[in-house]
Amino acid sequence: MNLIQQLDNMFNPRSVAIIGASNTMGKWGYNILCLLLSDKSREIYAVNKNEAEVIGRKAYQSVVDVPDNVDLAIITVPFKDVPAAMEDCVRKGVKSVIIISGGLAETGEEGAQIERETAEIGRRGGIRFIGPNCMGYFNTASGINTVIFLPPVTKGPVALISQSGNSGQSIITSASEMGLGFSKYVSSGNEADLRFEDYLEYMAQDDETKLILGYVEGFREGKCFFERAKEITKVKPIVIVKAGRTQDGARAALSHTATLAGSDEISDAAFRQVGVIRVDGIDELIDVSMLLLGQPLPRGKRVGILSIGGGMAVMAADAVTSQGMELATFSPATMERLDSLLSRRWSHGNPVDIGGDRFNYECLWPLIEDENVDAVLLISPTATRSFIDWFAVYAPWLTGLDKLRKVVEEQDLKELEKVKGMMVKHDKPVVFCSMGITVVREGGVYRYIEQNHLIPFATPHRAAKALARFIGYSEYLHSLK
Amino acid sequence: MNLIQQLDNMFNPRSVAIIGASNTMGKWGYNILCLLLSDKSREIYAVNKNEAEVIGRKAYQSVVDVPDNVDLAIITVPFKDVPAAMEDCVRKGVKSVIIISGGLAETGEEGAQIERETAEIGRRGGIRFIGPNCMGYFNTASGINTVIFLPPVTKGPVALISQSGNSGQSIITSASEMGLGFSKYVSSGNEADLRFEDYLEYMAQDDETKLILGYVEGFREGKCFFERAKEITKVKPIVIVKAGRTQDGARAALSHTATLAGSDEISDAAFRQVGVIRVDGIDELIDVSMLLLGQPLPRGKRVGILSIGGGMAVMAADAVTSQGMELATFSPATMERLDSLLSRRWSHGNPVDIGGDRFNYECLWPLIEDENVDAVLLISPTATRSFIDWFAVYAPWLTGLDKLRKVVEEQDLKELEKVKGMMVKHDKPVVFCSMGITVVREGGVYRYIEQNHLIPFATPHRAAKALARFIGYSEYLHSLK
Repeated sequence: MNLIQQLDNMFNPRSVAIIGASNTMGKWGYNILCLLLSDKSREIYAVNKNEAEVIGRKAYQSVVDVPDNVDLAIITVPFKDVPAAMEDCVRKGVKSVIIISGGLAETGEEGAQIERETAEIGRRGGIRFIGPNCMGYFNTASGINTVIFLPPVTKGPVALISQSGNSGQSIITSASEMGLGFSKYVSSGNEADLRFEDYLEYMAQDDETKLILGYVEGFREGKCFFERAKEITKVKPIVIVKAGRTQDGARAALSHTATLAGSDEISDAAFRQVGVIRVDGIDELIDVSMLLLGQPLPRGKRVGILSIGGGMAVMAADAVTSQGMELATFSPATMERLDSLLSRRWSHGNPVDIGGDRFNYECLWPLIEDENVDAVLLISPTATRSFIDWFAVYAPWLTGLDKLRKVVEEQDLKELEKVKGMMVKHDKPVVFCSMGITVVREGGVYRYIEQNHLIPFATPHRAAKALARFIGYSEYLHSLK
Repeated sequence: MNLIQQLDNMFNPRSVAIIGASNTMGKWGYNILCLLLSDKSREIYAVNKNEAEVIGRKAYQSVVDVPDNVDLAIITVPFKDVPAAMEDCVRKGVKSVIIISGGLAETGEEGAQIERETAEIGRRGGIRFIGPNCMGYFNTASGINTVIFLPPVTKGPVALISQSGNSGQSIITSASEMGLGFSKYVSSGNEADLRFEDYLEYMAQDDETKLILGYVEGFREGKCFFERAKEITKVKPIVIVKAGRTQDGARAALSHTATLAGSDEISDAAFRQVGVIRVDGIDELIDVSMLLLGQPLPRGKRVGILSIGGGMAVMAADAVTSQGMELATFSPATMERLDSLLSRRWSHGNPVDIGGDRFNYECLWPLIEDENVDAVLLISPTATRSFIDWFAVYAPWLTGLDKLRKVVEEQDLKELEKVKGMMVKHDKPVVFCSMGITVVREGGVYRYIEQNHLIPFATPHRAAKALARFIGYSEYLHSLK
């Protein structure tokens, strides 16, 4: 069996045993069993050497006693008992194991010794395993999920590989709030057997995955990662949060997942050379993902800015140029069209500040159609609290506001559909930015922008930073041609 | 009358006339009149030369016809009619004016000429005015408010001066969402008469204001600003978003509010020398405000990190050191106490990664009490969705979850009160960070952290950036002693 087949088995078990199943709420062996039981499509077996029953189900003394094949064993026992549990898995003929238990290589020599011993038992028995010191995985296609305390995750094109369980939680939670759906996730832990680069190869050939995200503290085999990544990024983008940038961060990484972070400058250059998009934090990871999934690849770095207000226009211009992009010089035709659309107060150049005029999508079309513009940054009140709510409070004598609200929402939706159409037709990204005002997460407009990955960025700076990374990836792909 | 008395009159009018009052929803003269009418504590007069009534009230042909003193006139007429409206104000003896109308100096020579003419009329008549090309102001103490489309603003210690109306809107909206309350706000527009530095002087002596925020594109009299700021920052912190950092941004500022942004390096150094905290965007402005209002001034830059997870600990260590702060070296006593509180899996150093243990505030006290720690960065699940919600879905057989939820919330609240007490007692900031997971904006825990300005930051990077600015201000104040 090759790696892909092994991982396919790992991610699609028909029967699962949990070694260390517990009756105590809060313990890993209880919490994970709850999750496993919530999906009825496979057989679940509880293993506990001291209990006859766990959560009302028969418990087996050892995984060896389970009267069925066991496709996957999940080990949650204390660290000293891990090798024995692994031995049992070998005797049972289990081929896929997840070791949740921590307290191993990340804690010092005693744990490292036990971890090596466990890995050796697994290797001899032909077992592939995830962990130890991890939170397991999920696969939304097969429904298997061992990751506790997550909000509901929707199916989608994003795969995540995380060397940190809690960073993984944060990434999935934040991404879900932004409407991103997942194909597969794995919390890789200490990587005593399967490593980041193995999962990467698996996600690369996975049809459900269109975008691969990673949280990385260090690579066991950097060379291997970069070689594989180079091939993958031609087809699927890879975005990585590489933590342990600073000396102190690197030291913290060592005690966290026993990884050597390596020189930050070297990995920065290496990421760039293979087309991996490196970001600094979870917020940026999600920002870039939104663009990769929702926008056409830009052809260059000349940005047109359209802003509802002057202050935002200034901050956006700052953000765009400080991120290494350029402000586009509009064609005469664009200038003429804007002149005819806007009152004399508009800024007469890029950024387009519409002055005191009410925001109107008509001003966006000239920018999208201008050959001198590669991408548009749009600072508009999209999906923010409607001005109609304000009138309802301060002009209570006005009638028909509810009807007007409906009309405005329907019109906004139509305009957004047109924006999407223009983006696709002209192959040009239009990045939304919300002027720092909270997006209202309800109604048809929100549903539309969520589905199309157009939820506005909170600040021009965040929008520009994500756009710069997106353009960098686009330039990389062009450089290969 | 000195400037302070003049501005006191401006911010506390007993009677207001709106010149350009309108019956058309959406026009400035309609929208602002709605706001004015919503506060019954002063006389409001509508002026419109073509209408007999506006919003059901008698309209006067000219402000001169108003049968009462007019303390404040608000001008919303088209730009060409502004000088005549100002003449009328002079004839009426009005002393305070707000010119909302735009289309003046920011649009070119014709507008600049009209602006100069208007300013000259005002000067001769002894009028002080805000604007033109602005959104006016509010004063939560007197209840006057001309700023349309704002959410409800609560009274509080923050004053804001903004050279951009839309940036002001964004700042107030975002700040309100984070529980910050305001004393006064002014949108200063083109500053043809009253300037940023005048408002600054007024806010400095205002008893309701404890913190002054500014959005700045450029100063008309930089020297004057910096001299005044130097005196003020000894007593009240000033935080400024200075836009127009880049050449393109500066050019955009010119067409926005007709200001010359000046050299960015020079203003950066000048801000530092007078103790003004400069930030890059609205999000940072609010982040720093939370610390200034909610935290004791730190004595130094040695930061202790306590994290619920290893990945977050690594990113926090990166963030702290890349922002120029140091990771504290814990005293032996702190190490011993942490050893006794945590299982062997903890990271045994700074950052404190509690490993697989459940988060416990007990681990926070040693850090706060350690003389080697100046500030604590706490990455915890404070006010995030409770794990109990998760059990309610995945372990529906469990009873008593609602009761447990109450117990947990009460305990959390008690712990937070203890954190606050310890912060004050030891004069040490404890900066909360939420691991990227959305804070749940309801319940007693949220109300407590909102009132105490302890709402967790979304990422370690944002927390560290704000903390670094806060420490910079503290170091500045110490350097004066």
